[in-house]
Amino acid sequence: MKARVEVFLKPGVLDVQGKAIEAALHGLGFPGASDVRVGRLITLDLAATDKSTAEAEVKAMADKLLANQVIESYQILIH
Amino acid sequence: MKARVEVFLKPGVLDVQGKAIEAALHGLGFPGASDVRVGRLITLDLAATDKSTAEAEVKAMADKLLANQVIESYQILIH
Repeated sequence: MKARVEVFLKPGVLDVQGKAIEAALHGLGFPGASDVRVGRLITLDLAATDKSTAEAEVKAMADKLLANQVIESYQILIH
Repeated sequence: MKARVEVFLKPGVLDVQGKAIEAALHGLGFPGASDVRVGRLITLDLAATDKSTAEAEVKAMADKLLANQVIESYQILIH
């Protein structure tokens, strides 16, 4: 099965990368861009063949390695 | 309108970050993880109120700033 993990900074956490991109977009002539946020997108293949096993495995991966839960939240999609 | 841009390394390009995560996952007890790839996910708000204007604007942003088209490809979603 294939999995997709989206990792974003939690709402209250300042997204410096997003702010930098927003400022650059304004400078490039896109004044309408606002609330820019940058996250990571991790895709992977899994050996597991059923959805619930795959989901549990990817959740464990995200908790252990893919996301820093102090400042980040994640979302998993199995397909 | 809200936009979402997903930026990934093109298929032929070696994804070092993905390889590092894959090796770390194997070390953590997830031998079934393979073909790990890491991308960027950029979300933003737009002043544009119709979908086609928004789409054209975000495409220009991606071409100019958000993606390095020599090695990366991107996908836009307006919602």
